[in-house]
Amino acid sequence: MATDAQSGKAAGGRQTAESMAARQREISVSEFFSKNRHLLGFDNPQKALLTAVKEAVDNSLDACEEAGILPSVRVEIRQLGEDRFRIAVEDNGPGIVKAQIPKVFGKLLYGSKFHTRKQARGQQGIGISAAGMYGLLTTGKSVAVTSRTGSGHPAHYYEIQIDTRKNVPQVITDKVVEWAPPHGTRVEIELTGTYKKGRHSVDDYVRQTAIANPHCEIFFTTPDAEAPLHLRRGSETLPPEPKEIKPHPYGVELGVLIGMMKETSAKHISLALQNDFSRVSARVAEDICSAAGLSLKANPHSIAVNEAERLFKAINAIKIMSPATNCLSPIGEEQILAGLRKEIPADFHTAVTRAPSVYRGNPFQVEVGLAYGGDMPGDELVDLLRFANRVPLQYQQSACAISKAVLGIDWRSYGLGQSKGALPTGPAAIFVHIASVWVPFTSESKEAVAAYPEIMKELRLALQECGRKLATHIRAHRRALDEEKKKSYIEKYIPHIGIALREILGLSAEGEAELVARLVDVLERSRARGEK
Amino acid sequence: MATDAQSGKAAGGRQTAESMAARQREISVSEFFSKNRHLLGFDNPQKALLTAVKEAVDNSLDACEEAGILPSVRVEIRQLGEDRFRIAVEDNGPGIVKAQIPKVFGKLLYGSKFHTRKQARGQQGIGISAAGMYGLLTTGKSVAVTSRTGSGHPAHYYEIQIDTRKNVPQVITDKVVEWAPPHGTRVEIELTGTYKKGRHSVDDYVRQTAIANPHCEIFFTTPDAEAPLHLRRGSETLPPEPKEIKPHPYGVELGVLIGMMKETSAKHISLALQNDFSRVSARVAEDICSAAGLSLKANPHSIAVNEAERLFKAINAIKIMSPATNCLSPIGEEQILAGLRKEIPADFHTAVTRAPSVYRGNPFQVEVGLAYGGDMPGDELVDLLRFANRVPLQYQQSACAISKAVLGIDWRSYGLGQSKGALPTGPAAIFVHIASVWVPFTSESKEAVAAYPEIMKELRLALQECGRKLATHIRAHRRALDEEKKKSYIEKYIPHIGIALREILGLSAEGEAELVARLVDVLERSRARGEK
Repeated sequence: MATDAQSGKAAGGRQTAESMAARQREISVSEFFSKNRHLLGFDNPQKALLTAVKEAVDNSLDACEEAGILPSVRVEIRQLGEDRFRIAVEDNGPGIVKAQIPKVFGKLLYGSKFHTRKQARGQQGIGISAAGMYGLLTTGKSVAVTSRTGSGHPAHYYEIQIDTRKNVPQVITDKVVEWAPPHGTRVEIELTGTYKKGRHSVDDYVRQTAIANPHCEIFFTTPDAEAPLHLRRGSETLPPEPKEIKPHPYGVELGVLIGMMKETSAKHISLALQNDFSRVSARVAEDICSAAGLSLKANPHSIAVNEAERLFKAINAIKIMSPATNCLSPIGEEQILAGLRKEIPADFHTAVTRAPSVYRGNPFQVEVGLAYGGDMPGDELVDLLRFANRVPLQYQQSACAISKAVLGIDWRSYGLGQSKGALPTGPAAIFVHIASVWVPFTSESKEAVAAYPEIMKELRLALQECGRKLATHIRAHRRALDEEKKKSYIEKYIPHIGIALREILGLSAEGEAELVARLVDVLERSRARGEK
Repeated sequence: MATDAQSGKAAGGRQTAESMAARQREISVSEFFSKNRHLLGFDNPQKALLTAVKEAVDNSLDACEEAGILPSVRVEIRQLGEDRFRIAVEDNGPGIVKAQIPKVFGKLLYGSKFHTRKQARGQQGIGISAAGMYGLLTTGKSVAVTSRTGSGHPAHYYEIQIDTRKNVPQVITDKVVEWAPPHGTRVEIELTGTYKKGRHSVDDYVRQTAIANPHCEIFFTTPDAEAPLHLRRGSETLPPEPKEIKPHPYGVELGVLIGMMKETSAKHISLALQNDFSRVSARVAEDICSAAGLSLKANPHSIAVNEAERLFKAINAIKIMSPATNCLSPIGEEQILAGLRKEIPADFHTAVTRAPSVYRGNPFQVEVGLAYGGDMPGDELVDLLRFANRVPLQYQQSACAISKAVLGIDWRSYGLGQSKGALPTGPAAIFVHIASVWVPFTSESKEAVAAYPEIMKELRLALQECGRKLATHIRAHRRALDEEKKKSYIEKYIPHIGIALREILGLSAEGEAELVARLVDVLERSRARGEK
């Protein structure tokens, strides 16, 4: 094809393979997410402020729990201009070692949680760096980090900017500072945002975080507050530490299996299967190899593609135990009740933690809590609080499996109101938590859970169980009210009857008292019979 | 904190800052998207097959148009097993130079389109490598690529596997082969998938691509077909080449502005503003600098953050012309009609291309086409075809601005049926296209367009214009039908009346013919008058 020597373009201004090749280049992941920031939850100023706070708090809680420290977190939001805010999140966690600080806060896709199959709030190693990047893009200001790993160590203060073109941190300031806390991390981000109360607000997020994490205390300073709000602990017990698990053979694809065989440290296929997967015993490995027509001692590193295909088919033909589910760390019924009681005062609280279950090889567990009565308005839709690995979900309610499951229940049979296709109505709040090694979010801004059939089933069962308890409470409560009413009638009129009988029968004061007592007794018994 | 020397963990099995630091590591973007593949449209086997075909076809069409070649694309889907397919997409494009082939197909975030502000189907440099990665993960098979850049050049054949851990291509095979086409590219991917007809099918996608790209011919081989289906061109005219534009000052954030000043090749702020932005004349640059209290000749590379803030405020306070919109390449009314006529036979076709408009500094343009009547069923919901930069959108219809706009129109006033909150009913298909330098998709699998108010307004206006034309047609058509009916009555009975009159009046054959002719004339005229 004829090309124009100067522009490298074909005659007529169009491109050639060569001119196109000259324009090909690598795109850094930070450039990608900077242009596509809505994918990470930075679509608009209100959501951006919430997302930044959320990412920092998620990290603080994960770090404290991993280190076995009861979390104490400070969240501060200061307003600097009409749409300019400076947020700070400070924790009493284990701190971050000096060398890691720039990468943790100034590089996307850097972290410790991505490669482990373990229940955690953070998964990707993107969140906090993305929040810092958003701050830098909108205000030009660095992320400021103070961290200390123990009272014997100095506190380090960093100002960091992400170099978006290369996805590497640029250190602007790096110094040792005086800092009172013996250990912990404080991160500050200046950003363009909007602070609002109500739905999708930081206030809502903080309150819900306190409910799902009763072992955590939060000091929360809003732009309009004079003093921080103190959300106290409802429990002094740390959640049990979630365990890391190996992949289950049923969840592994052929290409992934080939990769695992290439990279295993085991010398024999049989050992590779036992070491690198969960639920593969020596016996199961033998069955798999024999079904695949492979020697137990075959070298996994030199496995051919057709052999791997046979291995893959054999794995899926052999019966293998479901994955272990002790890797999960649910909140637990007691802790859910503690969280609900301290943040949602009501007449009745109940909670259900289902046994663990499995979807696509991933263990998960569903929990539901319910608060009823008190000062909650009786003529509005119930408040639905959604959580995944203890993190409140604030956006995309209608796209979430949790909402779909709630809509699918007939709440009228449990004593609440409900229009077709709508959330129930009544003085109630419904709390739903999904814990999993890998929560299937519908997008990476982690706002809604995908509706896998196994998850929907567990949600339904847990909601129904809470619903039945609610129905019992509402019925009993109604009965108690009725009873109270009858009792008060008796108590009101009996003295008058006593006086009348005394006059008619000419009784003494003692005789009247005795008669009245017998009368009350008889009436009470008949009332009680009438209840049955 | 006391640590256990062996595990590096704190006493009690919990973590310390040091043990956590040891587990921190970089995550490659390919690892990220491999684990989060649903974000790219590989959530389930049916969608995965469609997405892989779509990414390859998008690339083929972009390359052909950039090179000024009328596209001729072959799409082949062969079934190898119950859920195993091999897809091939071959084009007559400019080909890819040898050195670029491995990276284009074996590295995520690599491409020529991300850094240009220009209307194109592809944007991110992810799609085709992600399709190859999905194939590798599910079947262990390489992507096979054949490409030739001109008849004077050899054809190169590559087999490539992405190294997911590092996001780099691994070349398995690299050789020169005999290949008949003078130039073009063929890519083959083996993958786990499901092939189905109907909604969300590859068949639907191919047909819609042919409608929105009438200048393109497609040969389509399905697993169940004996011979390829040939979707012919409806037009021999290439769309005009979209132009690249510079960013508009109003769309730039403070942090981005600071970055641009640091990296500009201009020596003075005034020149940087004129060179690096669109719509900034020398006069506008002067106004901005003076409002910001900066010298025209200030060095942009040494601008301080507070100076940049003043510059940012000045930019947004000065009146600047809207961005140029000649960077867009709409399909055009004629071409839309050509596409609709060849793929959707009907009694009536209409199309509207709106003038360009702007959202958040990004030029965009809306087009609507409509086909009515023919063999389309009259009692079903209309067929809604959504397109962005000429690419059919197949999933997430309800979340898309296009569907929302269609639902918001009262179609009954235009002669179609419609239930509240539903798509209209009737024998019609509605075609909607949004062209933009940057289409705001709601997710990176590019399935739905975000409902920006400016976009919604343009959609509404275009839909209403087509609706009015449809209403006119339906009214005229109804009149023509009625007329036809009356006319046929006259034609049917007049001869009998003629015979009767001839007998009664004793007319000759000529006399009868003359009388009948006058009678017809009078009746026709009276019928015509009755119409008015």
